[in-house]
Order: sequence, then structure tokens, then C-alpha cells
Amino acid sequence: MKTVNFIPIGIIHTPFYSIKDMPIQGPGGKGIKATIEIYPEFAAGLKDLEGFSHIILLYHMHLVEKHSLIVKPFLDDEKHGIFATRSPVRPNPIGMTTVRLIEIRDSRLIVEDIDMIDQTPLLDIKPCLPMIDDIQGLRLGWLTGKVDQFSQKKSDDRFKSFSDSLEE
Amino acid sequence: MKTVNFIPIGIIHTPFYSIKDMPIQGPGGKGIKATIEIYPEFAAGLKDLEGFSHIILLYHMHLVEKHSLIVKPFLDDEKHGIFATRSPVRPNPIGMTTVRLIEIRDSRLIVEDIDMIDQTPLLDIKPCLPMIDDIQGLRLGWLTGKVDQFSQKKSDDRFKSFSDSLEE
Repeated sequence: MKTVNFIPIGIIHTPFYSIKDMPIQGPGGKGIKATIEIYPEFAAGLKDLEGFSHIILLYHMHLVEKHSLIVKPFLDDEKHGIFATRSPVRPNPIGMTTVRLIEIRDSRLIVEDIDMIDQTPLLDIKPCLPMIDDIQGLRLGWLTGKVDQFSQKKSDDRFKSFSDSLEE
Repeated sequence: MKTVNFIPIGIIHTPFYSIKDMPIQGPGGKGIKATIEIYPEFAAGLKDLEGFSHIILLYHMHLVEKHSLIVKPFLDDEKHGIFATRSPVRPNPIGMTTVRLIEIRDSRLIVEDIDMIDQTPLLDIKPCLPMIDDIQGLRLGWLTGKVDQFSQKKSDDRFKSFSDSLEE
């Protein structure tokens, strides 16, 4: 199968140096700031980004060494298919977080509401748009009634090594 | 710089065989159906996905041969930095569309509201969640007042070859 190759466009500096006790998803990291360093060769692509209040970061969850197709996620005691969760141990560990854009200084972005570990390689930035990214009337499957917990729960050792199979 | 390597987890079959006249973004493709074929080795990861009404597809915009840091997007006559747009000619051409999940038949997903070309390699599926993917009070920079046009505009030849530099 043909491999798809990407290159980091920058690196995300965050105050999270270990996987334990990290927020899970943006709401859990509310108010926590990160600095994104965009590499010089991509900095021109930031033109006019400062007008947007929120941006979507796509990044490589680089500590994931092995994926699991069935996982027990943070918000449930049942096991679910990886694609029905936001767990990191995905076949292609692409992280996606919508963050608040505070400021752009040259090729550095100051953002807030983050949930990624320090030194995470950034793959893409997209402006967050209504109509496209906001959907009303969502049906939430196994997550029904549990989504509020994203802002309270912290990660634990469950994905610590990112390499243990969770398919017991 | 270290390359990030991903592998397709499936392929997206759509009725769009050429880049011209494709919808731009999901609202433009409202009601249009696609079939996603998940490769057998990843099909177990679909468990419990059927409970979700909307899913986020991350895919490789495989026809993009060359990126541009400054582009003139479909919704404006001004040029903007690529990261302040949803244009396909990004340094890492990762497409992201939220689609309505209609049905799962074995390892095939029937989805609706699509904007990708036939034979697009799929990289990830994430359930679409409120609080995480819906942000209120967005500031929209150059797109202020233009976002409604996503549902009306079609693509044109602008990114046809996906390889012409738009950095005039």
C-alpha cells in the first residue's frame, strides 16, 4: 500500500512534558497556552491568519508507536472501535485540536486551550469556520451524556507507552 | 527534517471524477453520497461508530503535487496565506470534512455531504463531538460575511492541475 508522506511545518511547545495528567481534548486544556514555532520556509503561509479567533491544528501524535483497533477510552468503561473514539493510538496518529489564537509574533503563534504534549510536530493549520466545522443536532453514540467530562478528566497511564496493545 | 509517514486506511468513492465543478467544503456537497471502503485490516476499528450521526474524515488530497504559501481562494479576490484558507494546495495536503454517517455495511460506510474527489485515500475517521468541534463566537478574519458562499460556489480550474504555483 502506498505510504503518504508529510513533513512538519513547525513544532508545538507546551507545558506538558509527560503523557500522564495531560488534558484530554481542548476543553480540558482551557486557558493553557502553547507557543507554536512555524519553520521559516512556511511562515509566509500565515498571512491574514491573525483575523481568526480559532484555528484547527493537525499534528503528529509522535509518541504513538503502535495502534490498537479496539480501545477503552478515557470516558467509558466499555471498549470501542478506535474510529469511534478520539484515542491517540490510531492507525494514523493525526491529532486534531481547535485552539484559540491569541497572537502571532513573526513566525510564532501563541495559542490557548491545548491538549498536546511538548515538542509535537505540527502538520497543518486551518481556520475554524462555522457551517463547516459546527454541526447541529449531533447524535453521539456511546459518548451520549459523557462529553462534558472532557473538561474534567485527565489522562492516565492508559496510553503511557503508546505502544501497549489495548486489544486484550 | 523528519518525514511523517501514514498509510491509507481505506478509499473514498465519490461521484466527482474531475476537480472542476466539485463542491467546496461539505455544505457545498450537501446530500451527495459517497461510499467509503475501509480496508479489511482496519475494519475492526469501526465498532460502535454507527451510533454517531456525523464523522470527521481526514484524507490525503492526493492530486496536490505542489503547495503554494499564498493563494487566491474561491471565496475572495484577495490573496491570503495558505493557513488562513481551506485551499487544497497546502504543504501537507490533509483534507478534513465533516460528513453525515448514513449507514455502515460491513466495512463500507455510506456518507453524505461530501467534497472530495473519487479515489481519495482515507487517513482517519473521528467522531464529531460538541464542545470539542463546535466553537461559539468565532472571529473569521477575511472570511467574515463570505462563509455562506461555501454552499453555492463550485470549484473552478484554479487548482486544476494542483501543481501550478499561485504565488504570482
